[in-house]
Amino acid sequence: MRRKKIDNPFAERLAAFAAKVAEKKLDAAVVFNQANVRSLTGVDCDNACLLVRPSCEPVFYTDFRYVPAVERTAPWLKVGDIKKVGGKKPLKLGKAKFAKVGYESVMTHAKFLTLEKVFPKAKFEDVVPELTALRSVKTPWEVERLRAAVRLNDEIWSEARGKFRAGMTEVEMARIIKHLMIERGEGEAFETIVCVGRNAAECHHVPDGTVWNGREPVLVDMGVKLGGYCSDMTRNIVPERPSRLYKKVYALVLEANMRAIAAAKPGMTAGDLDAVARRFLTKSGFGKEFGHSLGHGVGIEIHEAPWAAKKQKTVLKPGMSVTIEPGIYLPGNLGVRIEDLVVITEDGCEVLSASPK
Amino acid sequence: MRRKKIDNPFAERLAAFAAKVAEKKLDAAVVFNQANVRSLTGVDCDNACLLVRPSCEPVFYTDFRYVPAVERTAPWLKVGDIKKVGGKKPLKLGKAKFAKVGYESVMTHAKFLTLEKVFPKAKFEDVVPELTALRSVKTPWEVERLRAAVRLNDEIWSEARGKFRAGMTEVEMARIIKHLMIERGEGEAFETIVCVGRNAAECHHVPDGTVWNGREPVLVDMGVKLGGYCSDMTRNIVPERPSRLYKKVYALVLEANMRAIAAAKPGMTAGDLDAVARRFLTKSGFGKEFGHSLGHGVGIEIHEAPWAAKKQKTVLKPGMSVTIEPGIYLPGNLGVRIEDLVVITEDGCEVLSASPK
Repeated sequence: MRRKKIDNPFAERLAAFAAKVAEKKLDAAVVFNQANVRSLTGVDCDNACLLVRPSCEPVFYTDFRYVPAVERTAPWLKVGDIKKVGGKKPLKLGKAKFAKVGYESVMTHAKFLTLEKVFPKAKFEDVVPELTALRSVKTPWEVERLRAAVRLNDEIWSEARGKFRAGMTEVEMARIIKHLMIERGEGEAFETIVCVGRNAAECHHVPDGTVWNGREPVLVDMGVKLGGYCSDMTRNIVPERPSRLYKKVYALVLEANMRAIAAAKPGMTAGDLDAVARRFLTKSGFGKEFGHSLGHGVGIEIHEAPWAAKKQKTVLKPGMSVTIEPGIYLPGNLGVRIEDLVVITEDGCEVLSASPK
Repeated sequence: MRRKKIDNPFAERLAAFAAKVAEKKLDAAVVFNQANVRSLTGVDCDNACLLVRPSCEPVFYTDFRYVPAVERTAPWLKVGDIKKVGGKKPLKLGKAKFAKVGYESVMTHAKFLTLEKVFPKAKFEDVVPELTALRSVKTPWEVERLRAAVRLNDEIWSEARGKFRAGMTEVEMARIIKHLMIERGEGEAFETIVCVGRNAAECHHVPDGTVWNGREPVLVDMGVKLGGYCSDMTRNIVPERPSRLYKKVYALVLEANMRAIAAAKPGMTAGDLDAVARRFLTKSGFGKEFGHSLGHGVGIEIHEAPWAAKKQKTVLKPGMSVTIEPGIYLPGNLGVRIEDLVVITEDGCEVLSASPK
């Protein structure tokens, strides 16, 4: 029995979800979303349905192609044939009739219509809030994975930066990072962003043929995947002789970043955290130029809850990861963003990113 | 005016979709899906809604972050603020009331619920069938892009194969391909598959630490992205001295592939095409070992319509792309799959893949 527990670092979250299903008086919940299924079982599978009932063992439904992989990754899981859930034969389990079924509102509408046919008499209740709340609090096993991914990302940034030369294009600099991410990790967690000079003022700039003259600032937003977990960081190459405006903007963004890190702690809302940076930048005269939210959780997916944005009521808890990434963008001129990944602790936060800023 | 047409290789498809909207007597259709929006406009944007009405100019709704990029890519498009479509302010266009609205059933159920609030009195009709039918027929401009992506994929395969050495692991061989795809193209269209020996019998094998001894067969399934379009090909390194069984299986899979290519032409159904290969392999005693469908369309996405699978009624038309990828899998022993990408022509098909097989 002890061995079984060691092999299943997801048991606690899955049990907590089953408790929620019971608490909401649902007869069952069906979880299809790939990242949600993985967060409850550790199994990464693009054709799965996890059936969770209050007083039964959960069942992992999938098709024959994935059964060997599931049995290898999670030998503790009971496996069933997915055709029973979403296919032609509606789910018949004993003689259970499901009157109230938990579902994910993030599924496609087409799939929801199928689900209504599978459970023709059921009432449906969205369980995305419960799944999100559980998934956003990382387990110690997951925090260790985030640490490893961020550590590797720091190393790659340091090595890539040393290889950047005047005369290179944004695409060439991005490629240096991509190659390192393939060599040392599991590739990019998202499309690497490299912005030379004024391109950094465009929030969604895609690396292009813009050549770096070696004297302009460069903004790099990058994250490697490792062990199935993502990392995310933004750093800027500050020119030796920056303009007075760049210097001022950089100092303000850095202070906004540091203030938010100093403030981050359990009990405050994600909106409060956003407000710490936003208030400071607004007072400094750049509120409007900070046109996006402060940050987001990082885990199995690069963008996940909690959302550190205006008015977000989510209460921060120990184990939640969140990026702290204030920015100031002056179109046609310059852009600065400084982004660290932190994990909320019992009395503050642990800053995972270690790259100099 | 002439210049405007040259700049918009998507005008014909967009006009055809507007005609469908009129034919279905819809007051409007809202297209949110990123690939569908791109197939109608050429614009790649992850926060967009294309509003298409029978007798008005279409409007591309997006947020301020994307406006510069949209105006650069598609200067012919009328741009609006997306908040009007899905945000707090419901869409008010003149005093139009939309009674029948086309929507995409592939949107999330949550988004559908929002849409119902935006158009509280509307009836909704799924326009995915119409969008899919239009998108699956590639324009000459798109076929040229597919050709270029496939040509590059052929070159990368040839170069990568020359670098494979006995003693390398599957992960190492996959990395060689990934590096080349970053260097010459826009990276992988999907996670590269490399299977040494019996691993090829697992349809969903993920490259791992299995070492190639230089004498076993290797199966490689790979596709580079170029110009925003995907490619897809599977080849096998056949050992100098293959087992009798491997030789037999390889010859059968190759013949199934060639027979399907010879048969592919407009007017037949995608199911008929699948049946050509399936009947042959079944007669040869390996019907059950060909456990997946014959192929799929390739374009903006790596897997799209048409689906060359059992019972698929889609009629093949000139311009449709489809993979021809029969396979035989003998668990614990060997697996062979040979995959080419073809485009249906007026009287048969053009095989884009040129790598020796």
